[in-house]
Amino acid sequence: MITKLIRNACKFLLPATFALVAAAQNPQSAIQAVLDTQAAAWNKNDLATFVSFYDPKATFVGETVTRGTSQLLDRYKKRYPTPERMGKLTFSDNEIQMLGASNALVIGKYHLDRTAAGGGPANGIYSLIFVKTPAGWRILHDHTS
Amino acid sequence: MITKLIRNACKFLLPATFALVAAAQNPQSAIQAVLDTQAAAWNKNDLATFVSFYDPKATFVGETVTRGTSQLLDRYKKRYPTPERMGKLTFSDNEIQMLGASNALVIGKYHLDRTAAGGGPANGIYSLIFVKTPAGWRILHDHTS
Repeated sequence: MITKLIRNACKFLLPATFALVAAAQNPQSAIQAVLDTQAAAWNKNDLATFVSFYDPKATFVGETVTRGTSQLLDRYKKRYPTPERMGKLTFSDNEIQMLGASNALVIGKYHLDRTAAGGGPANGIYSLIFVKTPAGWRILHDHTS
Repeated sequence: MITKLIRNACKFLLPATFALVAAAQNPQSAIQAVLDTQAAAWNKNDLATFVSFYDPKATFVGETVTRGTSQLLDRYKKRYPTPERMGKLTFSDNEIQMLGASNALVIGKYHLDRTAAGGGPANGIYSLIFVKTPAGWRILHDHTS
């Protein structure tokens, strides 16, 4: 009985462990996980967590250039002051291209599902430059239009 | 007299030679030179030379994603069919940030000086990803808005 339990546990735990290790080693999976976590944070109206995945020296190009996470958080708070204005965010069609071992380019699309009162739906394309840091992959540059 | 000639020649030629070698070795100077050459080509209405500084696998994000130099050249030809529509292009405020040894991010501004008949003046911000190739630095990704 105990042998069977151990055998069954191994059947499930070993592949799961390998999958976790593979995810940790694969930059594409790690970067996709950052984007998934960001979208989830946005959809909980948690802008601080959303912005925490930007590098402290990040630059953001929208209509103007925003520099650093503090300015970036201020910008998001001003533009998206209420849950209604934030809406529901989806990232899709991510193409992740490595630039050496420590950087990556991501091209993808965002969709903001919002009520008319919240500003209506919004769509756009983003180009992100990720950088590998001791804390994980972070966004060094974001150009969204 | 000959000694003086050689001395004077060295006074001018040596620094010039060092400057050329430094430019060849310095990625920032090489990248800036590509942008200068592109603007000069645009202002001679030479779209083929302008586009030749994009990598064959380049992606361009404007309202949509354009892929490859052939599609990119077609897009430019359609949008800028006449010298009047092309106007006079200036790139400015370039910030060049290395991403490892073989890639770089450039954030800068473009200005298109055009007559009203040509479409009027246009301005925007670009984010470029450069890649070092055997042929020199080339644009791998361009997000302009």
